[in-house]
Amino acid sequence: MNTQPIFKKIVLLGAGLIGSSIAHATRRAHLAEHITAYVPRAETRARAAAAGFADSLHAELKPALEGADLVVLATPIGAYASVAQQIAPHLEDGAILSDVGSVKTVVIRDVGPHVPEGVHFVPGHPVAGTEQSGPEAGFAELFDGRWCILTPPPGTEAAAVEKLVQFWRGCGSEVEIMDPRHHDLVLAITSHVPHLIAYNIVGTAADLETVTQSEVIKYSASGFRDFTRIAASDPTMWRDIFLNNREAVLEMLGRFNEDLAALQRAVRWGDGDALFNLFTRTRAIRRSIIEAGQDTAAPNFGRSTKPASKS
Amino acid sequence: MNTQPIFKKIVLLGAGLIGSSIAHATRRAHLAEHITAYVPRAETRARAAAAGFADSLHAELKPALEGADLVVLATPIGAYASVAQQIAPHLEDGAILSDVGSVKTVVIRDVGPHVPEGVHFVPGHPVAGTEQSGPEAGFAELFDGRWCILTPPPGTEAAAVEKLVQFWRGCGSEVEIMDPRHHDLVLAITSHVPHLIAYNIVGTAADLETVTQSEVIKYSASGFRDFTRIAASDPTMWRDIFLNNREAVLEMLGRFNEDLAALQRAVRWGDGDALFNLFTRTRAIRRSIIEAGQDTAAPNFGRSTKPASKS
Repeated sequence: MNTQPIFKKIVLLGAGLIGSSIAHATRRAHLAEHITAYVPRAETRARAAAAGFADSLHAELKPALEGADLVVLATPIGAYASVAQQIAPHLEDGAILSDVGSVKTVVIRDVGPHVPEGVHFVPGHPVAGTEQSGPEAGFAELFDGRWCILTPPPGTEAAAVEKLVQFWRGCGSEVEIMDPRHHDLVLAITSHVPHLIAYNIVGTAADLETVTQSEVIKYSASGFRDFTRIAASDPTMWRDIFLNNREAVLEMLGRFNEDLAALQRAVRWGDGDALFNLFTRTRAIRRSIIEAGQDTAAPNFGRSTKPASKS
Repeated sequence: MNTQPIFKKIVLLGAGLIGSSIAHATRRAHLAEHITAYVPRAETRARAAAAGFADSLHAELKPALEGADLVVLATPIGAYASVAQQIAPHLEDGAILSDVGSVKTVVIRDVGPHVPEGVHFVPGHPVAGTEQSGPEAGFAELFDGRWCILTPPPGTEAAAVEKLVQFWRGCGSEVEIMDPRHHDLVLAITSHVPHLIAYNIVGTAADLETVTQSEVIKYSASGFRDFTRIAASDPTMWRDIFLNNREAVLEMLGRFNEDLAALQRAVRWGDGDALFNLFTRTRAIRRSIIEAGQDTAAPNFGRSTKPASKS
């Protein structure tokens, strides 16, 4: 895709699903001459080394950041303020500092004040993922056809933003520039509230006295299992998202609850038309998502499962 | 699997996803000598003929049911009472009458009174499906490794139940015998409430003023798209399920709402520990479902999506 790398040296601060996937995608399209990851924990560093996506791995920030022209924060967002403070002295003039967090106003609040003059701060959010986590979970195709949202603060140098846009396109993404507050509202409904609901119903099902956990598991193919996928996402990452996008999440959750109360009433009073009308409308949204290339048209997501072992 | 067919003639009343899948699975394992489907609507009958899963197709009940030793109701459950009344005069002595509906107490209420003496009434529910519907949607592997629940009324002849158990095992299912009231409670939490929630959030997202529908679609890969799959299920079938399993659905929905209120409070007050603990517990349920062979371990259900077309 690119013959000339966009960056001399990319540094990933964190090597989980997203960090490692960026490394794989960078290598696939040769977007940087050198790929470094800063991984302070020895055990995680060993796993990252085994996964082999970086040209070098560091336990110390100074050597990791030396000569870097793209630095990407890829830790849970609860760690942003502390990491930003630590990296600030080592960021080089003209470097781009970005991140991959699922909440963007908080990044500007927690990271913004630490960004040295001469460093271009361009927060980002690749809207892609799986329920898996850790350095082994990454793969180069994760961002293909998905959207990456950038939220540069007003006054950010256009050339720096454009360079990051090119980088993400090189990773396979489409790119959108957005206001950070609007980003947080959009993601509250497309991602955060769906996760909250999924976590919630899986918790509810686990706690019932009238239905056993074994029954929930056996009959999960009737719908429940779909929710367990996103409810298996990384707990630390998701705790931090809810702690840092509270207002937007509560607003969208309020709407969800309001609609659910109306639906509950329709069930209670046997309002078949109301049910049928909603169930018909929602079908159209699914079709649009498939047409937009954001999901597969294959039944059951095309999943294949081996038959259950006899017990 | 079986060398000797279990039934002489199986009649499917309805040829949607489940009816046509039963036909495919019956043929695959040679479970019946003859496979008939009763499809009154000419347009649907033509589609069923093109799909080619039946040995004969009928627009009239009398010839369809002649000589049948297994009759399976596979229409939306709202039609059960009327269909049961119509088929009653044509059911032959010693035949088994079953169904595939997702609610079981209502079947006993609506179909039970019409069952002639000498006919074995064994309601059933294969806990399997996809979001697709219609005669083209069926396939032989749908029931492989999934559970089929039978809810024979007290006093049902054991030999008839056993014959149906063998039939479903031949279709690839595991079989469980259950009390119909308990079935309806179990399915309320594993299937009906998950569908209601999925329908609801898709409706909520479609109705927002602050976030456009196009944004919801573009960024759906962050979680939302998972919900759109089950919210694309057949509207008539699902309306009928909610109209006919009201009490169990409202009970389970009450539990869901109670838990969601607690979770909402944890978000509002920034209770990170409560969030983290729930998010950790839910991961274990996912693992159990995968270990039980009820879902794939592949990330994102193993779905593959082609990149979005540039627009």
